[in-house]
Amino acid sequence: MTGMNGAESLVRTMLASDVDVCFTNPGTSEMHFVAALDHVPGMRSVLALFEGVATGAADGYWRMARKPASTLLHLGPGLANGLSNLHNAKKAGSGILNIVGEHALPHLELDAPLASDIEGIARPVSHWVETSTSATDVGADAARAIQAASTAPGQVATLILPGDTAWTDGGVVADPLAAPTPQAVDAAMMDAAAAALDGSESLLLLGSSALTEDNLMRAARVAAKTGCGLLCEWSNARMERGAGRAGIDKVPYPIDQALEKLGGYKRIVLVGAREPIGFFAYPGKPARLTRPDVSFVHLAGADADLDAALDGLEHATGAASTAPVGIYDRSEAPDPTGPLNPDSIAAALTASLPENAIVVDESVTTGRSFFPTTFRAAPITWLNNCGGSIGYGMPCAIGAAVACPDRKVAALIGDGSAMYTVQALWTMAREQLDITTVIFANHSYRILRGELTNVGVQNPGPRAVDMLSLDRPRLGWTEMARSMGVAATRVETAEDLTRAMRAGFEENGPSLIEVAL
Amino acid sequence: MTGMNGAESLVRTMLASDVDVCFTNPGTSEMHFVAALDHVPGMRSVLALFEGVATGAADGYWRMARKPASTLLHLGPGLANGLSNLHNAKKAGSGILNIVGEHALPHLELDAPLASDIEGIARPVSHWVETSTSATDVGADAARAIQAASTAPGQVATLILPGDTAWTDGGVVADPLAAPTPQAVDAAMMDAAAAALDGSESLLLLGSSALTEDNLMRAARVAAKTGCGLLCEWSNARMERGAGRAGIDKVPYPIDQALEKLGGYKRIVLVGAREPIGFFAYPGKPARLTRPDVSFVHLAGADADLDAALDGLEHATGAASTAPVGIYDRSEAPDPTGPLNPDSIAAALTASLPENAIVVDESVTTGRSFFPTTFRAAPITWLNNCGGSIGYGMPCAIGAAVACPDRKVAALIGDGSAMYTVQALWTMAREQLDITTVIFANHSYRILRGELTNVGVQNPGPRAVDMLSLDRPRLGWTEMARSMGVAATRVETAEDLTRAMRAGFEENGPSLIEVAL
Repeated sequence: MTGMNGAESLVRTMLASDVDVCFTNPGTSEMHFVAALDHVPGMRSVLALFEGVATGAADGYWRMARKPASTLLHLGPGLANGLSNLHNAKKAGSGILNIVGEHALPHLELDAPLASDIEGIARPVSHWVETSTSATDVGADAARAIQAASTAPGQVATLILPGDTAWTDGGVVADPLAAPTPQAVDAAMMDAAAAALDGSESLLLLGSSALTEDNLMRAARVAAKTGCGLLCEWSNARMERGAGRAGIDKVPYPIDQALEKLGGYKRIVLVGAREPIGFFAYPGKPARLTRPDVSFVHLAGADADLDAALDGLEHATGAASTAPVGIYDRSEAPDPTGPLNPDSIAAALTASLPENAIVVDESVTTGRSFFPTTFRAAPITWLNNCGGSIGYGMPCAIGAAVACPDRKVAALIGDGSAMYTVQALWTMAREQLDITTVIFANHSYRILRGELTNVGVQNPGPRAVDMLSLDRPRLGWTEMARSMGVAATRVETAEDLTRAMRAGFEENGPSLIEVAL
Repeated sequence: MTGMNGAESLVRTMLASDVDVCFTNPGTSEMHFVAALDHVPGMRSVLALFEGVATGAADGYWRMARKPASTLLHLGPGLANGLSNLHNAKKAGSGILNIVGEHALPHLELDAPLASDIEGIARPVSHWVETSTSATDVGADAARAIQAASTAPGQVATLILPGDTAWTDGGVVADPLAAPTPQAVDAAMMDAAAAALDGSESLLLLGSSALTEDNLMRAARVAAKTGCGLLCEWSNARMERGAGRAGIDKVPYPIDQALEKLGGYKRIVLVGAREPIGFFAYPGKPARLTRPDVSFVHLAGADADLDAALDGLEHATGAASTAPVGIYDRSEAPDPTGPLNPDSIAAALTASLPENAIVVDESVTTGRSFFPTTFRAAPITWLNNCGGSIGYGMPCAIGAAVACPDRKVAALIGDGSAMYTVQALWTMAREQLDITTVIFANHSYRILRGELTNVGVQNPGPRAVDMLSLDRPRLGWTEMARSMGVAATRVETAEDLTRAMRAGFEENGPSLIEVAL
């Protein structure tokens, strides 16, 4: 049979569909795909030392590139190691093409040490799961997987490729398949939404791709015209922010604050957002954050055409020529000085973030008050963790940096979260990515200290508190970074933090700043 | 209702069943269990900075303590992060009780950010999966889960506990349930096994608990009496080794060597072992490592009473008073000197491992030739990875050290494997565990360089080779260890390695040695 094996047909099909980045940690069962990377030019392969880095990077890549990257993972365990960041990607609506190697089909029945139920492992975090059964099918299967990954707002597609489908000849390159058209917006729903938005007891709640620069501006005009409130969800996959843009506030994470903030709204129009609920349930507190008598208008879900939804809403409310609310000027505050605390850190960020920076925010408790201050930062893009599984931030920053080599990336990470995928630092160094990682070293899972009280535990004893402490021993973040080839410094004042961040953004390549809290 | 919530009933039930160690990284949904640790004395809780460390530690704990430890994991993503080491534990026959928090039952339908199909994530790596539905059930469910975990040879049991089952009163402590009796050995099979073992064309192949000191001695007497060959599987959950014991060789990992070693055997008796197969399939090579005309006698599987099987076999072959084959003396070789290579490293290990040491072997390519030399080490216990998913070694060492505080632990780890669960170093420091970690720093996934050729890839190009290289940048293992509170040194000669290992074993607490290769 002439020339092309299944592995090569895979790589060529991916390139034909404009999937040209692969975040990977391969093993024996994926060696033919690794070899195909040599035969076929055009695929950028990025090695990660742990699969959670690869999947988190693919998530960040989608958010910035708006097209899927691929991951190449070693059997069930390799996929398993990437699972929690795939969970985060799924919740963020990020499109990812996972390629997972499998034992050759005749080997499967032997239950080798690495054999596992790969489809079973994939299913909880995937919208689409299939296993190819012959080299001839690999190309067509891959094209369908990419189509699935590209379905709005973005889906996780997992294609499992047995070793013999890779090494056998007979591969066929498949043509790209168009992504399905996003859900259209219902005209009757548009009328209902326009009617509901009327004064300060109504709220326009945004999420997903309602948070582009243009859509935020449309929403801000609607708010100006109708007098409605304007908020976005607590966690947003991607949001354009900073001076000159419509700055909108978030539904708070702490449940009592959220209840208070939302309690005044009797009518809520949802555009790319879901009905507000608590991250967790707490004894004696409601899980829904809105009034019992609230009425919702589901104008458009995350899978719909949100540009059309907000454009339509702008016209339906007659807001097209209204001056928008909440346009912030660039801060002219002097650089912050003195002790490091959430407020001075927010000021340091506002002072130092360069125009067009991408901020990956996994700052957890330290970052809860970053939002209002940074309305006055330079125009930036802000990415949140939408799935709540920690360890998303540094990998996501890798993906964002690969997608946007001409932009600076700031990764704001709590120390507890950073440890989950600390191997990311090595990939940043290897690829010389323009990422400034800022570690908030409070030496504890501080969020859980609060949660212990919130769930009703009074006066926790020393053994409980010890389970939430990272203080024994303290993590040495500058040594950690240097051990993986990333330059690092430790700061104890706001002026040093501002200076270190400016230096990090000015230089090319990665750096890390340990913020001593 | 009086006094005890579900969380407290869980902890008390575990203690009643002699489960008194918990490897954990908890979150909001597990805060009541964390609080229960304060109310109820007796549970040792060990914090890990990543769940793969917790599950790998539970695996190592079972292997040495012969009873289950528990893990306490945060929802689906926390379980997912521990999945690949649960895969390894399942393949090793290790008993583990996973406690996974879940959202409160009324919160589940809201599909919160951290909501996921926890049972679906658990099933591929668990023998037993259940979700408690009320506080009253938690104790009884936990007792059944522990019984499942204790089923021979050891099983992975995952109990999912919604938050409200933890915080609601009405908990009931359950009595321990006896583990099922292991499978009995069939008398007719015993006769067949004794008949099959006759001369050098027959093989007694051992695995699982056939590798205790006594059972190895029984097997060595059978071999002496019958003239049969004697081997164990390539990967063994636990094996007693060293001077004065019956030293037996392994089925090799490289497929051609395995085919050669097994090719002479026409009759194979399996005791705790499975029919030999390749780790992977390779184009044009058989998956089964034995002659096509081989006949197997399945005397006893890993779930059977292997003490009885080998005792019976010893008597059925009339070997009870025969002098055993393969008893090795303690090495009297001088300490090795000069360059570091697999042979000089094996000699350094043989010279320095103290009596009763536990060796956790994830040395991958570097360690392939450790086995013959270390027959002459002091009496030691040797643990292998049975599931093939890298990142098992340092976590497993933590579990072994917690189980056996009076023994020294040596963790022999390839650099690529070590990075997978590098967070383990912090837990070693925090608990001041007596672990000497030896990192074989060859700056590559060396095993894959061989596999690239084995699967038929000729002349791999630079981009393929680059995907298997950890050389850019080099990992700084001494800085890495110190950043997590572990003392570290780097060695470049066999004499320095021997000296550093002796120093590591003599001191209390953890240390790390980077072996420059």
